[in-house]
Amino acid sequence: MKIMTQYKDGNYSIDVSRGILRDKISDYIKNYNQVFYLADKNVYDLHKNGKLSFIDEPILMEQGEASKYFDAFSSLLETLLEKGIQRTSLLVIIGGGAAGDAGGFAASSILRGVDYIHVPTTLLAHDSSIGGKTAINSKHGKNLIGAFYRPKGVIYDLDFLDSLPESEILSGFGEVIKHALLRDQQTVDALMETTINGIDINEIEPFIIKGIETKMDHVIRDENEADVRKHLNLGHTLGHAIEYRYKMPHGIAVTLGIYAALYISNELNQEQTFDLKHYYEYFKGLNYPIDMLKEIDADEMISLMSKDKKNQSVNRVGYIVMNSTGEARFTELEQDLLTKFINSLKESL
Amino acid sequence: MKIMTQYKDGNYSIDVSRGILRDKISDYIKNYNQVFYLADKNVYDLHKNGKLSFIDEPILMEQGEASKYFDAFSSLLETLLEKGIQRTSLLVIIGGGAAGDAGGFAASSILRGVDYIHVPTTLLAHDSSIGGKTAINSKHGKNLIGAFYRPKGVIYDLDFLDSLPESEILSGFGEVIKHALLRDQQTVDALMETTINGIDINEIEPFIIKGIETKMDHVIRDENEADVRKHLNLGHTLGHAIEYRYKMPHGIAVTLGIYAALYISNELNQEQTFDLKHYYEYFKGLNYPIDMLKEIDADEMISLMSKDKKNQSVNRVGYIVMNSTGEARFTELEQDLLTKFINSLKESL
Repeated sequence: MKIMTQYKDGNYSIDVSRGILRDKISDYIKNYNQVFYLADKNVYDLHKNGKLSFIDEPILMEQGEASKYFDAFSSLLETLLEKGIQRTSLLVIIGGGAAGDAGGFAASSILRGVDYIHVPTTLLAHDSSIGGKTAINSKHGKNLIGAFYRPKGVIYDLDFLDSLPESEILSGFGEVIKHALLRDQQTVDALMETTINGIDINEIEPFIIKGIETKMDHVIRDENEADVRKHLNLGHTLGHAIEYRYKMPHGIAVTLGIYAALYISNELNQEQTFDLKHYYEYFKGLNYPIDMLKEIDADEMISLMSKDKKNQSVNRVGYIVMNSTGEARFTELEQDLLTKFINSLKESL
Repeated sequence: MKIMTQYKDGNYSIDVSRGILRDKISDYIKNYNQVFYLADKNVYDLHKNGKLSFIDEPILMEQGEASKYFDAFSSLLETLLEKGIQRTSLLVIIGGGAAGDAGGFAASSILRGVDYIHVPTTLLAHDSSIGGKTAINSKHGKNLIGAFYRPKGVIYDLDFLDSLPESEILSGFGEVIKHALLRDQQTVDALMETTINGIDINEIEPFIIKGIETKMDHVIRDENEADVRKHLNLGHTLGHAIEYRYKMPHGIAVTLGIYAALYISNELNQEQTFDLKHYYEYFKGLNYPIDMLKEIDADEMISLMSKDKKNQSVNRVGYIVMNSTGEARFTELEQDLLTKFINSLKESL
């Protein structure tokens, strides 16, 4: 399956399938003088005798978020310069969202920009590899330093997903659910039906592709996040706070955030737009720690949410809510009202 | 004098005059929620009781190139985040080329991009503040990490130039000469006539403005440096090598590089396109250390030039030469030929 971006210019393809890695990489590298492979340490260790055996001397990146701290980032840049990277070189970045974020930002800033392609190796990266956001972390928060910088291509070889642990699958699947909710009721129903007894990568493949399409659609309409791209933050405002406070995998925290957003949407819509009992049981059945929402402290969460770079108003928190499935909107909630919603949500569980 | 950029979009104005700082800053900041002043330490110390007395709490940047090392850069980003910078904030960067480079790259990467304006305080910055190149330095060379990121405006208050030491004037004036050479014979003649007995800021003001126009013209026709923007590197290939090796101010080294480029142009054109004796005496009269060219070692220089990020060919060095005044071209010189030229240039002095 090949999805093309639909920007005015600078388009690239996202190939999604099994077993495509070698061939697709060959297609890209023939246009470059020099190729550097950047790979997440753990991913490389896991696949160096298998899918990644064709790579001779990868530059290994710290695993996951560790690659996104300033020191790791500056070492990565110095290593590339040491090895003689040129403007005509290509970076091939192999790993999950963190590798894509840090590697993409390295590509954007080294020599003021070299080309790169991303080879996502997690389910979560079906989300993060689309949209051209790159970033590293500051002492003051995640993703606070970075660039909008598009890859020349994304090669999403689903074989990598077979070796993911359950927590990684759940984390990535949270974004699949989010994309279905942003799309339409039919997709949500079909997704729930397909996964009611568990998540099978082969069965969710069409939903991964739909998720990529949905993300792409939002990003292309609004690359710099002034408008509809914000809808992709469904579940993320509270999700980021939970992720930070409880050190929970991103997409698992987002799924809890989605549940909260559906609850708050019902409150704002003053009707049962979403059948919360149904969602509660579905999430719980898949092993999402949904009851953990009982433990959160409204004040603490709101304090964390206010630090989010997307939040610019005093005493109010920007929040994505839904008029109905497929119809999200951005609103700003007074902190007092949000406190009330969080507390009543906790009681409802 | 107001010069507007002529990009397809994202245009901004460059105001060049005396005494305009306060008023122009007021015009810009009224569009922003929050303003952060970043100032070169030395510049701030020099002007804190004068032109910069209206600034309450500037964030001080290390002086000059020291601001462009990774540690200084990461501290700057963390300080801005600590102080609560938001996407709707404006950075006002006050200082020479280095402050503009490091501050501009900070603006490009913090929160994936906030707006900034540059207040150049050196003559050299008439060059570097135009064109949207930002950068910091790597262990492996200058300006190897950065972004193309345009300011929202440049306020060039010429009052700052009055307090510059002679070496800074000579350094900046090197780029003024370069821009005249890239423009036309008439401008070169007028410039030489005006400055034959020394450089007076008030008298060279029209040439600074012409220089900005010439730079702008090259940049706009070729923002990403694929073609005519390269001509702006006149004098820079050898100049950078001399600057690095002899720790000489940028524009002084470039002026030596310009002299070498004129010499090499004559050799390639097989005629005396440029009256070298005239240029030699002019440069020497202004106190440029032109005889220092006798000391350079061709092999050492070529080795340094080959590391320049603009040089991508093996055994050849990209070089800007001139068919005539106003007509530059990019060529690649075999290392052997370049060695021969450098050695005969040394003998000619």
